[in-house]
Amino acid sequence: MVPQFTQDLFTDAHFTRLGTMCEVLDRVPVTNFEEPRAQSFLPRATLLLTSWGCPSVDARVLDRAPQLRAVVHAAGTVKSHVTDACWDRGLTVTSAAAANAVPVAEYTLAAIIFAGKKVLRIQQRYREVRAFRWWPAEFPELGNYGKVVGIVGASYVGRRVIELLRPFNYRVQVYDPFLSNADAAALGVDKSDLDKLFATSHIVSLHAPAVPDTHHLIDRRRLGLLRDGAVLINTARGWLVDGEALEAELKSGRIDAIIDTTEPEVLPTTSPLYTLPNVFLTPHVAGAVSLETQRMADLAIDEIERFTRGEPFRYGIQRADLARIA
Amino acid sequence: MVPQFTQDLFTDAHFTRLGTMCEVLDRVPVTNFEEPRAQSFLPRATLLLTSWGCPSVDARVLDRAPQLRAVVHAAGTVKSHVTDACWDRGLTVTSAAAANAVPVAEYTLAAIIFAGKKVLRIQQRYREVRAFRWWPAEFPELGNYGKVVGIVGASYVGRRVIELLRPFNYRVQVYDPFLSNADAAALGVDKSDLDKLFATSHIVSLHAPAVPDTHHLIDRRRLGLLRDGAVLINTARGWLVDGEALEAELKSGRIDAIIDTTEPEVLPTTSPLYTLPNVFLTPHVAGAVSLETQRMADLAIDEIERFTRGEPFRYGIQRADLARIA
Repeated sequence: MVPQFTQDLFTDAHFTRLGTMCEVLDRVPVTNFEEPRAQSFLPRATLLLTSWGCPSVDARVLDRAPQLRAVVHAAGTVKSHVTDACWDRGLTVTSAAAANAVPVAEYTLAAIIFAGKKVLRIQQRYREVRAFRWWPAEFPELGNYGKVVGIVGASYVGRRVIELLRPFNYRVQVYDPFLSNADAAALGVDKSDLDKLFATSHIVSLHAPAVPDTHHLIDRRRLGLLRDGAVLINTARGWLVDGEALEAELKSGRIDAIIDTTEPEVLPTTSPLYTLPNVFLTPHVAGAVSLETQRMADLAIDEIERFTRGEPFRYGIQRADLARIA
Repeated sequence: MVPQFTQDLFTDAHFTRLGTMCEVLDRVPVTNFEEPRAQSFLPRATLLLTSWGCPSVDARVLDRAPQLRAVVHAAGTVKSHVTDACWDRGLTVTSAAAANAVPVAEYTLAAIIFAGKKVLRIQQRYREVRAFRWWPAEFPELGNYGKVVGIVGASYVGRRVIELLRPFNYRVQVYDPFLSNADAAALGVDKSDLDKLFATSHIVSLHAPAVPDTHHLIDRRRLGLLRDGAVLINTARGWLVDGEALEAELKSGRIDAIIDTTEPEVLPTTSPLYTLPNVFLTPHVAGAVSLETQRMADLAIDEIERFTRGEPFRYGIQRADLARIA
């Protein structure tokens, strides 16, 4: 893992806890498996504890790690470092995606609440006019009472958002091709097809994974289905949205957007998304940052504890899952 | 009530429901008890249904309303129109403060979540730099995991905020001189004195009423107790905070603020609060707006239903309450 990205991840308390259940071969992260320290621990390692910035665990690395049986990733997706060679070798794999999902869902909840009453737009207008305004005249359908929220993707994040929305007076509808009717009922939400969800929601929030099937899932036609004044929230991946089509729709002023993830990331300095009044743009910070990374460390160490007891991982990932998860 | 402020308040469905339980003498609001329509309905009215902008119900009005027994206020505070003469006459009084509290608590929850990871500051900086930054270097202690939230006032709003914070990993402490230890335990929060709350919270949110005892409760000394980087949220009343002291503290850049209520309201156009990067300023919109006013109408009609059945109001207000409620 890369120290800069993970400096708040493992506290001394985490290492103390790890020390009670296994031998920590090296507590200083390596960023490259060619480093001498990696050469020294790979032959003895049973388990790799990884996080953001982990280099590829390829056949060459595995050849040097004959005892290796598991990769525990204290972050979200494992796709950038867990290679086919790992799956072929039969390594067991888990990640803290469920813990990384929590702050994303929390950011999304805040975004939905502020979207429902156009708080981000009103504060900007108030700076400009510095006078009393009857805001409902400028922003119709203000307020969160009875609004329809559309969730695209019943992922860890999507499900957590649905849970967090329960104390509110929203009607929540969900699109997810893998969600069964029974699961939807258990979540207390309505299933919807994607077009209907876009046409009938006041607020649409994206929580689908970046997989081949979801590339530009939100295209010009679907954006056009959104109601006037609807708010699109993207805390998932820029990959999901046709960026040119979104830019055009936002420039027209017909809809609003709250966007934490873009393609590319960072956007070019000339992008209108930096300055449009109907866009609230943040630089991919919805996921775990600083203190929140410790929730990922907690989960990863829970998984290591299960491993040392011979129990299966709680959040284990199979190769077959990769087509439908982030 | 003033039509402009209440245009989304009562729907046709509300009037239909009202019609099943009482005779609606006039469904078009009067804004002045001298209007001929008021002269016509006052002699027959048993109950006044009021909301924002209701003129004072004084002795002169009461003299013309010999049958009047109750005032049901479809909004928050009754202090601006329910006079001593109403209390002397023994009118029963209720308000929809509990319904108006819901959107205030929702706004506050969103503000707390964004405060915890400095989302509002980061989005502003991102517009400026338009480049990758390691945000924890610029904003220390980012994230909502394990942060301490201080709630000033266990009012309807304060209590609802506490409920909404339950699914999150905060430690919540409350200051309220009227809160018993048993009530605090039932709410699942720690009681704190006000100075300690200011000194130990990452985020402080004000939910106390504007009464003589709370005028400038948050003064220069208390603001000075806040931790570096703390966030003060005020969705209650500008009355609670020494505005000059707050302005000085914010100008220093030592703390952040999310402010929906100020003194005066609207702030002078020269106020630095419009432009300081560490201030998110909204124009008193946290409370019920548009669609959300219908929640107040629902509550008010529930109260009228109780009245017509001879039951006590659920949210009844006594004269003795006025010293400690908004």
